[in-house]
Amino acid sequence: MNPSLNLEQLLASIPHFDQASADAAQARQNTLTKPQGSLGDLEKLSIQIAGITANLQAPVEPAGVVLAAASHGICEEGVSAFPTEVTAQMVGNFLNGKAAINALARNAQAEVFVVDAGVGPSCPDDAQLHQLGFGKGTANFAQQPAMTAEQAQVIIERGAAFSKKLCQQGIRMISLGEMGIGNTTAAAAITAVITDSSPSTTTGRGTMIDDATWNHKVAVIENAIAKHLPDATDAIAILSSFGGYETGFLCGCILGAAACRMPIILDGYPTTSAALLAALLHPGIEDFIIAGHCSTEPGHRLALDHLGLSPLLKLSMRLGEGSGATLAIPIVRAAVACLNEMATFEEAAVAGKAK
Amino acid sequence: MNPSLNLEQLLASIPHFDQASADAAQARQNTLTKPQGSLGDLEKLSIQIAGITANLQAPVEPAGVVLAAASHGICEEGVSAFPTEVTAQMVGNFLNGKAAINALARNAQAEVFVVDAGVGPSCPDDAQLHQLGFGKGTANFAQQPAMTAEQAQVIIERGAAFSKKLCQQGIRMISLGEMGIGNTTAAAAITAVITDSSPSTTTGRGTMIDDATWNHKVAVIENAIAKHLPDATDAIAILSSFGGYETGFLCGCILGAAACRMPIILDGYPTTSAALLAALLHPGIEDFIIAGHCSTEPGHRLALDHLGLSPLLKLSMRLGEGSGATLAIPIVRAAVACLNEMATFEEAAVAGKAK
Repeated sequence: MNPSLNLEQLLASIPHFDQASADAAQARQNTLTKPQGSLGDLEKLSIQIAGITANLQAPVEPAGVVLAAASHGICEEGVSAFPTEVTAQMVGNFLNGKAAINALARNAQAEVFVVDAGVGPSCPDDAQLHQLGFGKGTANFAQQPAMTAEQAQVIIERGAAFSKKLCQQGIRMISLGEMGIGNTTAAAAITAVITDSSPSTTTGRGTMIDDATWNHKVAVIENAIAKHLPDATDAIAILSSFGGYETGFLCGCILGAAACRMPIILDGYPTTSAALLAALLHPGIEDFIIAGHCSTEPGHRLALDHLGLSPLLKLSMRLGEGSGATLAIPIVRAAVACLNEMATFEEAAVAGKAK
Repeated sequence: MNPSLNLEQLLASIPHFDQASADAAQARQNTLTKPQGSLGDLEKLSIQIAGITANLQAPVEPAGVVLAAASHGICEEGVSAFPTEVTAQMVGNFLNGKAAINALARNAQAEVFVVDAGVGPSCPDDAQLHQLGFGKGTANFAQQPAMTAEQAQVIIERGAAFSKKLCQQGIRMISLGEMGIGNTTAAAAITAVITDSSPSTTTGRGTMIDDATWNHKVAVIENAIAKHLPDATDAIAILSSFGGYETGFLCGCILGAAACRMPIILDGYPTTSAALLAALLHPGIEDFIIAGHCSTEPGHRLALDHLGLSPLLKLSMRLGEGSGATLAIPIVRAAVACLNEMATFEEAAVAGKAK
């Protein structure tokens, strides 16, 4: 994959899931010194990784956390419990290494790549920050489309190029994260349209809004869907209607990682809404995606089910930042380690099942 | 705790869960840069660790895996799909570093301590193996008690002394594992008696036995309970009735770890049956225990519910060896890392919740 590929070229460059490697991993699992299937989801995960990477002994280290932040014009409608400036402040916290994702990434021995996908003028100016030049974030989608169709396409291409760059730098697995006050509102709108669900079922409490704010959030989304009416199969139309820029960027990261045969781990609702968009652009991309966890946002479960993905962790988390995805990194490594490092019954001279 | 304490002295030496440290951890969680409660079960875990260790900045590294193996006389009744010699063969595999637990422990950066709690004459003779001198394992509990009451007490004391020794060596967290063909039969008998449940609800498929073997396994357990009829509140009577030696050893490890204020992580059904015994001996020990995962053995869920423990992982695993417990080690470390390494809202100058 060439980093400068446009969207059409990018989609054409995504390889097939390698069923032959997956089958070989399954066959190897059946010979290892344990009752067949007894490592449960770890076995399935090792088989999926073999298919993604087309490699029975896939390296999944080092891992990187792509943490994309952006501001959301929809916050003007009062849909969040936190003020919008928290997005920029938290970017500063990420860069200082003092947020939850930093502690979790250190614990998982993964490097954090913080991306400014349109945070706005208060965003810290820091050499560690990856700037995309998307300005102050999306427009208020209650009033107008969050972005233009051209911007939607470009932000996806930028995400894909970023995955490709990390792969070239030697990263072998990515966990996805986001920060953007208001972005569960965008995720709820995207999920409602793509899964053909009522906003009342796709809308959650985000950062724990009260009942009145929740009712208002649902109404804002219902009205916005009625206003923009995007085709439920047109990812560019849906992304440009509701945003955010980080959603589009993460959608591109997913496509770009698949193009590089690099496993990618979803975090919560916003990253999963990015995966819904990626699956519209490239059906079958689900095979390349690992669901890190299921958050307490009700729409997240709905989106994962739509994608046919089963989450590794269910720990009642609802933070974002890539926290759940990054917590899953050691589990993915463990799955690969078991496949690669265990002896077979024959090698270890252990007797098999008697009956 | 003195390593040579007898059981009565050991039980008297176990401290209270330190509620003041737990409360301080909860208060700190509420000031960290995230919506309150948004790290879900990770927050609860960090609070529990503070209470166990009586330390807000508890070190939980390095971690050790205590993997106790023993043979079970009940295998004479044909209750398992694997021949009994597999126990000794798997001990060899553990010592060679080629079993699932070895791969998982390396991945979690934890050292594996393999304990011969009565494997028998075919057990490898290896300097790395911790020998207890319990010979060839338990008697066939369909015919006679698995061990004497004195042996039951001594094996528990040996387990407690082992935890204490690891603590003195600098280990700060233990995950528990076991190997013993036939030991889910012992776990099912122990769980049936302690939770007052029918053996048909506490008996699972173990290493995937067929229907006929399962029916036979249930009948063997029913008959043995009727034969020995241990008092459901008498841990020594229950352990001596059904065994195994590794179950008693792991029960002692749990008590000894609590006496040292060291967090301990349960694995599957046999380790959880050891925790049921520990909770009979010392009510309140549950506060010191972390449930690493829930296996596919139906009785495991029942035993965890009886203890009031919520498992961190549910990955359809059913291997034992400490596999699920060890997979949970990075999650426990992550919980502690978030508590210790995150900035507060004030330190990071991040705005709080607006409404």
